[in-house]
Amino acid sequence: MRTYAGHSSPVASNDLYRRNLAKGQTGLSVAFDLPTQTGYDPDHPLARGEVGKVGVPISHVGDMRALFEGIPLARMNTSMTINAPALWLLALYQVVAEEQALAEGADPVAAVRSLTGTTQNDIIKEYLSRGTYVFPPEPSLRLTTDLVAYTVAELPKWNPVNICSYHLQEAGATPVQEIAYAMCTAVAVLDAVRDSGQVPPERFGDVVSRISFFVNSGVRFVEELCKMRAFVALWDELTLQRYGVHDPRQRRFRYGVQVNSLGLTEAQPENNVQRIVLEMLGVTLSKDARARAVQLPAWNEALGLPRPWDQQWSLRMQQVLAFESDLLEHEDLFAGSVVVEAKVAALLEGARAEISRVEQQGGAVAAVESGYMKSALVASHARRRARVESGEDVVVGVNRFETTEPNPLTADLQAAIQTVDEGVEGDAVRAVQRWRTERDADDGGRRAAAALARLRTDAGSNANLMAASLECARAGITTGEWAGALREVFGEFRAPTGVGGTVAGGGVTGGEEPDSGPGRAAAELAAVREMVRRTGEELGTRLRLLVGKPGLDGHSNGAEQVAVRARDVGFEVVYEGIRVTPDRLVAAAVAEDVHCVGLSVLSGSHLVLVPQVVEGLAAAGAGDVPVVVGGIIPEADCARLEAAGVAAVFTPKDFGLTAIMSRIVAVVRAAHGLEPLHAAEAAGDLDRY
Amino acid sequence: MRTYAGHSSPVASNDLYRRNLAKGQTGLSVAFDLPTQTGYDPDHPLARGEVGKVGVPISHVGDMRALFEGIPLARMNTSMTINAPALWLLALYQVVAEEQALAEGADPVAAVRSLTGTTQNDIIKEYLSRGTYVFPPEPSLRLTTDLVAYTVAELPKWNPVNICSYHLQEAGATPVQEIAYAMCTAVAVLDAVRDSGQVPPERFGDVVSRISFFVNSGVRFVEELCKMRAFVALWDELTLQRYGVHDPRQRRFRYGVQVNSLGLTEAQPENNVQRIVLEMLGVTLSKDARARAVQLPAWNEALGLPRPWDQQWSLRMQQVLAFESDLLEHEDLFAGSVVVEAKVAALLEGARAEISRVEQQGGAVAAVESGYMKSALVASHARRRARVESGEDVVVGVNRFETTEPNPLTADLQAAIQTVDEGVEGDAVRAVQRWRTERDADDGGRRAAAALARLRTDAGSNANLMAASLECARAGITTGEWAGALREVFGEFRAPTGVGGTVAGGGVTGGEEPDSGPGRAAAELAAVREMVRRTGEELGTRLRLLVGKPGLDGHSNGAEQVAVRARDVGFEVVYEGIRVTPDRLVAAAVAEDVHCVGLSVLSGSHLVLVPQVVEGLAAAGAGDVPVVVGGIIPEADCARLEAAGVAAVFTPKDFGLTAIMSRIVAVVRAAHGLEPLHAAEAAGDLDRY
Repeated sequence: MRTYAGHSSPVASNDLYRRNLAKGQTGLSVAFDLPTQTGYDPDHPLARGEVGKVGVPISHVGDMRALFEGIPLARMNTSMTINAPALWLLALYQVVAEEQALAEGADPVAAVRSLTGTTQNDIIKEYLSRGTYVFPPEPSLRLTTDLVAYTVAELPKWNPVNICSYHLQEAGATPVQEIAYAMCTAVAVLDAVRDSGQVPPERFGDVVSRISFFVNSGVRFVEELCKMRAFVALWDELTLQRYGVHDPRQRRFRYGVQVNSLGLTEAQPENNVQRIVLEMLGVTLSKDARARAVQLPAWNEALGLPRPWDQQWSLRMQQVLAFESDLLEHEDLFAGSVVVEAKVAALLEGARAEISRVEQQGGAVAAVESGYMKSALVASHARRRARVESGEDVVVGVNRFETTEPNPLTADLQAAIQTVDEGVEGDAVRAVQRWRTERDADDGGRRAAAALARLRTDAGSNANLMAASLECARAGITTGEWAGALREVFGEFRAPTGVGGTVAGGGVTGGEEPDSGPGRAAAELAAVREMVRRTGEELGTRLRLLVGKPGLDGHSNGAEQVAVRARDVGFEVVYEGIRVTPDRLVAAAVAEDVHCVGLSVLSGSHLVLVPQVVEGLAAAGAGDVPVVVGGIIPEADCARLEAAGVAAVFTPKDFGLTAIMSRIVAVVRAAHGLEPLHAAEAAGDLDRY
Repeated sequence: MRTYAGHSSPVASNDLYRRNLAKGQTGLSVAFDLPTQTGYDPDHPLARGEVGKVGVPISHVGDMRALFEGIPLARMNTSMTINAPALWLLALYQVVAEEQALAEGADPVAAVRSLTGTTQNDIIKEYLSRGTYVFPPEPSLRLTTDLVAYTVAELPKWNPVNICSYHLQEAGATPVQEIAYAMCTAVAVLDAVRDSGQVPPERFGDVVSRISFFVNSGVRFVEELCKMRAFVALWDELTLQRYGVHDPRQRRFRYGVQVNSLGLTEAQPENNVQRIVLEMLGVTLSKDARARAVQLPAWNEALGLPRPWDQQWSLRMQQVLAFESDLLEHEDLFAGSVVVEAKVAALLEGARAEISRVEQQGGAVAAVESGYMKSALVASHARRRARVESGEDVVVGVNRFETTEPNPLTADLQAAIQTVDEGVEGDAVRAVQRWRTERDADDGGRRAAAALARLRTDAGSNANLMAASLECARAGITTGEWAGALREVFGEFRAPTGVGGTVAGGGVTGGEEPDSGPGRAAAELAAVREMVRRTGEELGTRLRLLVGKPGLDGHSNGAEQVAVRARDVGFEVVYEGIRVTPDRLVAAAVAEDVHCVGLSVLSGSHLVLVPQVVEGLAAAGAGDVPVVVGGIIPEADCARLEAAGVAAVFTPKDFGLTAIMSRIVAVVRAAHGLEPLHAAEAAGDLDRY
């Protein structure tokens, strides 16, 4: 039982952890900020606006020390959501554990061997969904491999890799895709460890037994519980057949869960409480396929950063299930269930077929590089969005039962969310600069330089990178320095966006009856398509839309769906994927002579990043190009963005992509002094729309 | 999907119903106030402080008309929680439906035949738990029988009886007792209908098929779903074997649910949301034993009257389950489940054994009159209370995980609950008096008097009482007049309290280790017992405690548990059951020369009823006898009660009965000028306690 937490600074996060532990939480789950996740220090230009926002910034061993001040690591179970620089953060963690042991007079080696926890360390899903990759797939997989090989030998209770089907579901994966791609990822990692020769064949069962999974659980909880049973069965089969693991305990499917944030709504947010409870059931009802660790989001995550009380509530949800209900008193409730067995069998059949398609392409890494998996996810996601828009998939409070009494929980919206203090970033910048200065004061930076040099050398060889990284940690190297050295050796990478290959229609299927949900959605799409065509005609060119994700936030599902739908309604779409600097977005907007710039920011950095683009456009003489913004943006900030020159702001309330397109056309027309155009009028069919 | 609702007045309740219907609610569930439920008009002395408190007051056809103004009854499904006067309220409902049909130009007979809904009409559980009985068991069962026979012939879609295992669980029933006593009640009703000769034998299947059930669902949801499957199986068996119903459709177990209010906590009330969701699952997960209608309490019912938003939230819980989750897409999930089948078999075995014990005593009516069933429930309840006190049964926020962040939902407690306007009662009193005057203005009251005279005559014969009651309804007779006439013929009744026969120890079992939960609870009990003994010794007499429930509220579970525990710690206890007038309580306190008066009020009428007792004691020269009060009492009212001279107020926060006893001893000692005594000191064992 733990809540995913961390924000602002190591000291503030430490305070939060201690409070949660005092309330009965039995482990910690560390959220890192985006600069840390993508290998930048707080003072790097790309970190601007992102420091301490979605998690805690950890730049060096001093930060890690502060994060766990007073929390004995040898007796803690810590989950770290970290991927590209996972090996580095584990090195910092180990060094702090050694220090704590020495301070207590204990044996540091024994303390390290006893460390319990998880590094997420699943790079494949970063390319497919989450976007905090740094290096190309091959060297990234090598870092994964080194971490696995190291922990199997030195930290035998550590879970070195946590394969995340979680983010695949957020990116749109169906249950079959979720199972299949997670298995393909596990195969990629296990094959790489096997082929690296770092682990003797007779110990390979130990490697397999250390692989854990991180799974998503949506509100369709019956399907979810069947999905989990299918995972268990397939993993057992795969580890036995492909890797010859004969000890059944080593073949156990071990998984943790964060239930679905994607399905949480900003509208009537109190309903997220019951969603979270149902989502928790999908992964706890089946004893034979029960999650080992469950972390629940807070009901108000779609509104902003949860407060301690919100987090406590999510913890209490688990405690009521575990201690008040009788669920844990019973053996598996579904053993023998005809319905569940049939559903599991169907999921298994679908997953096996999708796994062979990926294998035929050369496995997960090849299917990332070719864009196959990403395109499949974007297409699934588009279909899901279309079902919600048409009302086929109900989302209570969003596309049905929208009327509501005034909500006392959000009556004072500012009180209902916790915001990060604006001063956090400046403090972190000054702190990391002071750290480097003090570090190098004694020896003129010689130890630090030597540690980095060794890291570069090892990176160019086949050596396991953990040894060099531990030395870097002890030498006070920073996260940005560690990642920077490896960037020099490995290079950087841009992953396929998955946007190009999707079918026209974006999953919106036309029903027979224009009044029915699907028929109405198709009619709306046609109407907006006509608006785009007609506006282009009036301007004497095809309408061009730049879709951009500035900043470090890699959650690109929304931007991708906007790009897909924009293409469907006839825009020419420029979309370069995640982590594009404001300067580059401005340059692209000018070069492509776009009619509108659409920015997506989910990390909470909109007040910093968006004005940079608006001002950049003005400075480049393109101040007349309207900018629209979408993201998790509190109402008060919407007004501030509009005051800064933004033409329209879309929040999670605006779930209709076609409606968003219609508003973008209106923005473009207004910017060019054209008369407003109503969708119905454009479609020439007032009666039907 | 409906919420149990009604308060203040017919007009205010009508407004609430219309709002809920507009939000997607698909039926109505009417809550009546206590005077209506116990057959009194608002201007009866016993109604004082109770009018409009826990439901809507309905005195005559004019009130019923206002309640359903603008709500077409022919197209509504209405559940009415009414028992002793069920036949009367259905008569009022039918007359309003006829009026609506006539106003629409429709056929009133056809309109009545199409009426759909439920009258609770289960008198057995009123004697056992809920306490709104009026007449003795035999004539009460005759009213039930008349209503059943009438509706089977005239309102074929009506559910005339809704057997309530709900209140049995609240009174402490184990799942086995809940099943067994509900079945025994159904047998009592069906046997009575059969033996009355009002229904031809070949139509008896129609009677059986109209019996529905109202079930409770607690947080132990796996056990609850097994309980529901056991109910289904047992009903099928009983209706086939005992009543020879051969059509399987007529043997279907049809039930509605209100999930458990008993388990909702005042502490950290937000946790009630997840409790309610889990409780809903117990009765929806099994397709083969799924509830037909589910009504959910609001999360803040332990604090006060829910607001529209609170009720909306409970409705949304059902909508998320029904429309967002995939539960309804699947066939029965537990068909074939080994664990569930075994658990169901065990429940069936236990229930069959308990049913034969009741049958051996002569059935449900005899087992009510003998006190057997009530004693069994009080004993089960005492065991459950003891498990909570010892920590064996966890209640999150109450006996575990008590620390909490400040709760923004209840930050302004007065805003978090809705209170009934103080003027409601006066308005209702004036309205009913005006009604009688206007009714009798034309004919000097001749039609009203004739209608009542016929009711008395029919009550003394074997005639079905519905015809006379319909005439009373049309003649403008009031609820109090209708019930008063029948009281004259049938007499009144006091049910066994179940307190006498329980075993000493009150279910508190001593563990071996004094530090363990059970051991600690036993040690505390011993300590308080010593305090009671020593105080009695100092005063030269055994300590005497009067436990009283003034007002009409019949929820006596709490008072009974206080009486049982008081006896266990050595008090001599005077407890006369429910609905004792303040005057009679004062007289008993004086006659028995008690050392303390403990009052229990759950209906919200504490500010009216408690001062009556305090002032009555003073007037009787017993102003030095301290009064303590327990109930659902908002914090602001606690201060007002103390200002009115109450020595201590206990709210749902005070779940420890032994601790309550300890405070009562302290109150008694203070009243007699004795030094405070600590439990530990009394027990002579400071180290252990």
